[in-house]
Amino acid sequence: MTDARVAGVGLTHFGVHPERTSRDLFAEAGLAALDDAGVAREDVAAVHYGNFMGELSEHQGHQGPLVAEALGLDVPATRYESACASSGVALRRAVRDVRNGEADVVVVGGAERMNNLETAESTDALAIAADGLYEVRAGMTFPGAYALMAASYFEQFGGSREDLAHIAVKNHANAVDNDRAQYQQAITVADALESPPVAEPLHLYDACPVTDGASALVLVSESYADTHDVSAPVAVTGTGQGGDKMALQDRQNMATSPAATDAATEAYADAGVSADDVDVAEVHDCFTIAEVMATESLGFFDPGAGITAAREGVTTKDGRLPVNLSGGLKAKGHPVGATGTSQVAELTRLLRGDHVNSEHVADAQTAVAHNAGGTVASAVVHVLETVADTEADAA
Amino acid sequence: MTDARVAGVGLTHFGVHPERTSRDLFAEAGLAALDDAGVAREDVAAVHYGNFMGELSEHQGHQGPLVAEALGLDVPATRYESACASSGVALRRAVRDVRNGEADVVVVGGAERMNNLETAESTDALAIAADGLYEVRAGMTFPGAYALMAASYFEQFGGSREDLAHIAVKNHANAVDNDRAQYQQAITVADALESPPVAEPLHLYDACPVTDGASALVLVSESYADTHDVSAPVAVTGTGQGGDKMALQDRQNMATSPAATDAATEAYADAGVSADDVDVAEVHDCFTIAEVMATESLGFFDPGAGITAAREGVTTKDGRLPVNLSGGLKAKGHPVGATGTSQVAELTRLLRGDHVNSEHVADAQTAVAHNAGGTVASAVVHVLETVADTEADAA
Repeated sequence: MTDARVAGVGLTHFGVHPERTSRDLFAEAGLAALDDAGVAREDVAAVHYGNFMGELSEHQGHQGPLVAEALGLDVPATRYESACASSGVALRRAVRDVRNGEADVVVVGGAERMNNLETAESTDALAIAADGLYEVRAGMTFPGAYALMAASYFEQFGGSREDLAHIAVKNHANAVDNDRAQYQQAITVADALESPPVAEPLHLYDACPVTDGASALVLVSESYADTHDVSAPVAVTGTGQGGDKMALQDRQNMATSPAATDAATEAYADAGVSADDVDVAEVHDCFTIAEVMATESLGFFDPGAGITAAREGVTTKDGRLPVNLSGGLKAKGHPVGATGTSQVAELTRLLRGDHVNSEHVADAQTAVAHNAGGTVASAVVHVLETVADTEADAA
Repeated sequence: MTDARVAGVGLTHFGVHPERTSRDLFAEAGLAALDDAGVAREDVAAVHYGNFMGELSEHQGHQGPLVAEALGLDVPATRYESACASSGVALRRAVRDVRNGEADVVVVGGAERMNNLETAESTDALAIAADGLYEVRAGMTFPGAYALMAASYFEQFGGSREDLAHIAVKNHANAVDNDRAQYQQAITVADALESPPVAEPLHLYDACPVTDGASALVLVSESYADTHDVSAPVAVTGTGQGGDKMALQDRQNMATSPAATDAATEAYADAGVSADDVDVAEVHDCFTIAEVMATESLGFFDPGAGITAAREGVTTKDGRLPVNLSGGLKAKGHPVGATGTSQVAELTRLLRGDHVNSEHVADAQTAVAHNAGGTVASAVVHVLETVADTEADAA
């Protein structure tokens, strides 16, 4: 089995772009990734694409062939939908194809257009990631679901709104210099605490925004990287996926995410690393409490200790284990179908050393991306590691 | 690389079941497939699921974990959407995982609920498989698109409405004894010719119906089949996928489907067979003209010769190459997300000898399934072959 290497990354600006279709957004990101990789377009064997709610926001399905065409590629293209983990799932399929010798070069990414909807429409559309029969009809929306998870966490492990505020402050600080981010704007703990309530205990600054954007990666096989003039110093060495019951009411514990734990366990085993080896991570902080739970699912902290770590600054840019140096979903934004591969694009640049925040992880060799769907009914974890850049060595 | 064997198949009745959710439909098909396979539920490693328009018909996304839960499976589950080829694409991913040793046992299938929508709503929903900006806004719906393809075919190669009627008559005849079929009802050429126009030259009997239903397969690795008490005498030996420009207006020729040709070429090469080796096929006859074009894309007939073959009865149940012995989309029905794996379920039973129409293909060893999305902007082809039933041999 060969490594799957990240040869190129591309990101649109994450923000409010209601006039741009998802195919337009993905074309920008995909062409940027191809340009970054420097691979010949005719070498691309397939497109793997994540999109969540194009049926509702653009009345458009069957986006696989549509986005391949937007990139000028005449290749098989597949659309994956796993709510907010859509492009994470697409990445898993792309990685497996490259590692198993099914393809030497693939484009994988995702896009979402959301701000062309009214706020009530987008809240309603996002709710299709929950159980329509047993949750949504009872009035549940995602802020409410994550509020239940936060309340449950506080009850089991302690913690406070102020602890969560530290996550928001950290991620906003990380985004200040990231020109792809929706909010390049620092906030204070007081700002977060004083922001209006959304669903107690969560307030406005506990929630990620509604975002339009796209992300893309070019993956190549080890042998392709070795025999072509491409630089691909980061490999995806581990992939894991987990599933859980859809409705919160059916879970044994609302303050843990076994799907993410399963995904992390599989990804670490696949890569031959442990949580202790991880130098930097991007996690799915759709709400601040989600970041806390993600860092526990990934094994960085014991259950209940993630909130303490957040309060104590362990995961800040200068902490022991920087988390969401991109700004995360919270400040960089969350164009749903684009988020999974966006995390890997950011980590690749952090490991390559050409990210605006690379200086904070100068010696990093191992990174983890954690992408979750709904209330973590699905989860995908990928491990990235730096590898000897054989092409650069040969040059 | 190991073979992927079909150990079990399951199908709901295909028909009008507006009161049943897609998860309910899939649970029936999936549990039937597990029962047919006789594999232990705890051996299942993943669920691969195709669904096209759940966002619009049920306001439900993220159906992967939902249908896994409906089967009582606590495993990673992924939803694939490629319009009418959704479960064909899911199957391709499942086959690759089993063949590459990523999993020993997987459930793959699909479901669609459509009849809970009003007719105008379902026509509108189906249109999201076409290009929303350049086709649908100009007034195109799928009957219109396939009418353009039929008109173009007639212009280039000749042919008539009466020729197409033979396809409808054949597929209805094949469905008469298939208790899974929506229409177990024979029709005549006169019935077809006299049916009301939908979009000239296509009339009512040229079109498949709007169908609710689900299908599922249990795939196992060769080694699992050899070491467990399961009967899996059919292997998926070839898989291929192709893509094309989404909008008809961007195609060089509306009377050919290069995406399907590409998929077939790849699948045959993968299996090490040629079109001449094929004994029986299920093809994507969403409209009668689509079956003609499919049989040409698959290399059974030269371009322009498929219509003659249909007229001459080459593809009837007692013809040289029976096509759509299940009744096809035309008479068995087309629950969009379920169709791809439904074709393979039917072919598996035909090859195993326990299909109501098995007598017509008693010596068949090689079968092909052709599943297409939209106006064949995406296509998936699978080759099935009988293998020595080692479990039966050992018994």
